[in-house]
Amino acid sequence: MPPMREHIRLYVNAPLCPGEGVVLSREQAHYLRKVMRRSDGDRIGLFNGRDGEWRAIIQTQGKQDCTATPHELIQPQTATPDLWLICALIKRTRLEIVAEKAAELGVREIHPVLTEYTNAPPMKVERLCAITIEAAEQCGLVSVPKLLAPEKLQTILDGWPAERRILFCDESGAGKAAIIALQSAARERAPWAVLTGPEGGFSPAERARLLSMPQTLAVSLGPRILRADTAAISALALWQSVCGDWDTGPVALADQPV
Amino acid sequence: MPPMREHIRLYVNAPLCPGEGVVLSREQAHYLRKVMRRSDGDRIGLFNGRDGEWRAIIQTQGKQDCTATPHELIQPQTATPDLWLICALIKRTRLEIVAEKAAELGVREIHPVLTEYTNAPPMKVERLCAITIEAAEQCGLVSVPKLLAPEKLQTILDGWPAERRILFCDESGAGKAAIIALQSAARERAPWAVLTGPEGGFSPAERARLLSMPQTLAVSLGPRILRADTAAISALALWQSVCGDWDTGPVALADQPV
Repeated sequence: MPPMREHIRLYVNAPLCPGEGVVLSREQAHYLRKVMRRSDGDRIGLFNGRDGEWRAIIQTQGKQDCTATPHELIQPQTATPDLWLICALIKRTRLEIVAEKAAELGVREIHPVLTEYTNAPPMKVERLCAITIEAAEQCGLVSVPKLLAPEKLQTILDGWPAERRILFCDESGAGKAAIIALQSAARERAPWAVLTGPEGGFSPAERARLLSMPQTLAVSLGPRILRADTAAISALALWQSVCGDWDTGPVALADQPV
Repeated sequence: MPPMREHIRLYVNAPLCPGEGVVLSREQAHYLRKVMRRSDGDRIGLFNGRDGEWRAIIQTQGKQDCTATPHELIQPQTATPDLWLICALIKRTRLEIVAEKAAELGVREIHPVLTEYTNAPPMKVERLCAITIEAAEQCGLVSVPKLLAPEKLQTILDGWPAERRILFCDESGAGKAAIIALQSAARERAPWAVLTGPEGGFSPAERARLLSMPQTLAVSLGPRILRADTAAISALALWQSVCGDWDTGPVALADQPV
């Protein structure tokens, strides 16, 4: 039986080694001490996306601070499938839903992009980061997706890696049925990216460029128009269930700490 | 080429026949006149879930009211796949996301249920209804899912239709990989329901009962714990892509108006 999971799990940036105390942030210390009423000797889970999840003992320091010392590995580090989400910037609340769900569904990197028809306010990077971290903390994950700064779709396509396939959610409806297309493509075992557009869709020039790239698999997400956030979540779920680890389970990292 | 869609689309309850004016609600009239600055002779789309979508001409009445008169069918009525969503009550904001996405992804009925571990505030039926209608209006749908009053999971299972299958999203992880299981089951062409639990999952008694029902297909949604709303949206997308109309396109109703 796997060890019991801790109720409170916190993401930290520091390396996690048994016996080496980690200084928690002021916000984390406040949350533990004031919100959750934890005190010296209480246990929490700690993870950093590299060293698995550790059971740690907390110790308060002065009036506001708190350290946590790992002592037992309770969940080995696993690799999130090599999937990126390339999503056009959309309205803040919808982008927040996408970031949260991308963390839960298991995405390695989130690349917000500006497209020709993008008409959204600047994204709040810190808030989006906090949302992905909270999703990872609450859902028992050991990794948080890397959130990149927004760039132009054109720029990201200019430097697109030759081997990384693109699941292009083509709102024109001209793409193939998603599951069948993904099942054929899954045999290749390539890294992937799911690409979703802004509320107004992709421009004809963007569509033409995407369709001309050998990496692109254009798929249809059905006869109904989906909002951008719904399309992103649906495509991630379909990809995970066909090409990702929903079938096989997570892959243990070879270099996992013991 | 299909006729141009109208930018403004409104859901009404009245029958839609050419030449027969429909009195819009006070809120709809306010939205058209004050928010969107529309006036006599302007065009909108109207749908009611039965008669397809019609292009209609608006005419203001007095200071506050407005009627819309259908004159051209622009989208025939299609049937949403025979899929129910049975979802345990969850936190309001998350239930609202589920209702919106269920409308977009194409669900015929939404049945909120109370389970043993349900620990959520009472749902706001009117607000949820408004959310499903807004999703249908904005996403070009011709149907709105029927939202039922909450009932106990036990009660709904007591009267469960013999032929309706249940896609049981089993957070224990013991279920089969979703896509493969659905592809085998899809050959039967049965009506279905997707069932998702509350934040605390199903109780052992509920799980045992569900697993004992011949209609149940227990599936796993991968190795990561998904929040209840993420599980519902993912399961609906998987179902639509394998058993629904994401492959074949919408089914025209035999009795569609011409």
